Amino acid sequence: MSRYFTEKLKNLTPYTPGEQPKDMQYIKLNTNESPFPPSQAVGEAVLRESQKLQLYSDPESVSVRERIAEIYGVKSNQVIVTNGSDEVLNFAFMAFADDKSPLIFPNITYGFYPVFAELNHIPYTEKPLKDDFTIDANDYIGANKTVVIANPNAPTGIMLSLDEIENIVKSNPDNIVIIDEAYVDFGAQSAVQLVDKYDNLLVVQTFSKSRSMAGARLGFAIGNKSLIADLNTIRYSTNPYNVNRMTDAAGAAALVDNDYYMTNCQTIIKNREWTVAELEKLGFEVLDSKTNFVFAKSDKIDGEKLYLELKNRGILVRHFTKEIICQYNRITIGTMEQMQKLIETITLILEEN
Amino acid sequence: MSRYFTEKLKNLTPYTPGEQPKDMQYIKLNTNESPFPPSQAVGEAVLRESQKLQLYSDPESVSVRERIAEIYGVKSNQVIVTNGSDEVLNFAFMAFADDKSPLIFPNITYGFYPVFAELNHIPYTEKPLKDDFTIDANDYIGANKTVVIANPNAPTGIMLSLDEIENIVKSNPDNIVIIDEAYVDFGAQSAVQLVDKYDNLLVVQTFSKSRSMAGARLGFAIGNKSLIADLNTIRYSTNPYNVNRMTDAAGAAALVDNDYYMTNCQTIIKNREWTVAELEKLGFEVLDSKTNFVFAKSDKIDGEKLYLELKNRGILVRHFTKEIICQYNRITIGTMEQMQKLIETITLILEEN
Repeated sequence: MSRYFTEKLKNLTPYTPGEQPKDMQYIKLNTNESPFPPSQAVGEAVLRESQKLQLYSDPESVSVRERIAEIYGVKSNQVIVTNGSDEVLNFAFMAFADDKSPLIFPNITYGFYPVFAELNHIPYTEKPLKDDFTIDANDYIGANKTVVIANPNAPTGIMLSLDEIENIVKSNPDNIVIIDEAYVDFGAQSAVQLVDKYDNLLVVQTFSKSRSMAGARLGFAIGNKSLIADLNTIRYSTNPYNVNRMTDAAGAAALVDNDYYMTNCQTIIKNREWTVAELEKLGFEVLDSKTNFVFAKSDKIDGEKLYLELKNRGILVRHFTKEIICQYNRITIGTMEQMQKLIETITLILEEN
Repeated sequence: MSRYFTEKLKNLTPYTPGEQPKDMQYIKLNTNESPFPPSQAVGEAVLRESQKLQLYSDPESVSVRERIAEIYGVKSNQVIVTNGSDEVLNFAFMAFADDKSPLIFPNITYGFYPVFAELNHIPYTEKPLKDDFTIDANDYIGANKTVVIANPNAPTGIMLSLDEIENIVKSNPDNIVIIDEAYVDFGAQSAVQLVDKYDNLLVVQTFSKSRSMAGARLGFAIGNKSLIADLNTIRYSTNPYNVNRMTDAAGAAALVDNDYYMTNCQTIIKNREWTVAELEKLGFEVLDSKTNFVFAKSDKIDGEKLYLELKNRGILVRHFTKEIICQYNRITIGTMEQMQKLIETITLILEEN
């Protein structure tokens, strides 16, 4: 840290992204990426834009916003697109949470929420999950705080029902409820259908997982148009050209091929069910995932040890050191071939230990 | 504004980007874009990455940072790359300015500085330019504040000498001096050569103008490695994957073709000198520009009127309503053909008025 760094942020602990070691070719099951490449239309759109990079992108991202609006049954002024969903989450924290509307979110969830809260000097409460790692909706009902819930939650993979989400939204009319649906396309129900009913609901999604665009950085939020206007006030005060030309075009093209991506999601779900069954056969306890990853532990091997043994054998999974979850590993669901390799490798590791 | 928008930001006035009207095909001389497309290597790099968008980008952007370091004669840990230079400017304001180190910058300069200051609740002083629109270096020497200077300045196009910049940096040892060199490749001297001498100097540049990548969004900053580490603390607390795969690769490829871009800059300079001479023949007063734009006014026609007349005839230039500069228009330097068309059109407008 330099002696010039502001006192205000001296205690900030940044987010730690999943590792990307370059010493060898790994089977990457640690950052919840899709194993499927983007559709052909995406490549064509990107190539076209690459010839026009000297021109600024459309700060309104009209084309991709209109397609999102169409697919999700809302108006385009109810949609904002951003440089990944991290950006719109940060904007939403800045816009809707403060000393008077502090944050509340689970103690085990997406690791970026407390970071955004610290960065923006917003007080926050972390509510423990129940013993079975589910979120207790009662903790958030009538909380009178700005609620942030990842649904399905990460890294547990467990979802709340749409009824529970609606109860939380309905019971906090004076605060925004942010539902972060990064993984919703893998089996949960989206709250987007509630945005016209509740003006305090903001639903955040991303193209990173279900639409194979983690490396393109495209996130979006859907809500009441006045919430979207507020988020645009922040966006135009931060980086009006936040989404570059290529990503903008890639997003619009991906939505034309939406069936391709939704079929891929079904494949991931099938591979997930297979993986869960195999892990259970090996004695693992696996949480009920509605995402493109599973969160699993075994009494036969320490969580960190399994992570390290897998890494030694060329398979990366994500291990968290937080005590409550340090026996677990978060394993991204890839292709069937990758999952078979994973199960074979774990079988070997267990035999050798 | 929704009733949920935080009190803290209610008075925030966002930045206004240059207009992008879609009603007809304009000659766009209003956002300082390059008239030259990116080099062939950029297209190839982007196409390659477009096939791998399902994978996250390198959060360290190693390849492009190493190439920047090589070209500018620094180490790669002295370089940070961001989603356009707006992002790193915002990060720098967050990291290095606060109540104890308030900001100081010219009253006529890049319009985003006061916006970032308001967004981050940082007090700021705007120092008037001299009557000839030059920056008075004495206003910043020993200011004991966080100094931000666009060099060359916008929208005037006028540069400060490297000696003046060094005097400002040297005389503010307890504060960061940010030199925003978005336009430096069009004839000014870069302060990058001073970063190893002064640990309080941060130089910001962009690929948007001289490297034909406005639509790709790639900015960077160079400084002492401890300053860069501080900026990375903010980046990892905001959006670690801030630069997407395609832009990252495009940036690295552009630097391999650096000669192409630097030759384009020479062409722009030549076109600028021609345009200045022609405007002066028409009776315009043109400030001494070291950028890819000129800032010009004429006693024969009101500034806003000229802007509107040009727009009616299919040529966009940038007009600012701020009183001190409202008689001027900022005109981006394009191809010789575009400049000829501009001069012809202005000639006609003046004849008709």
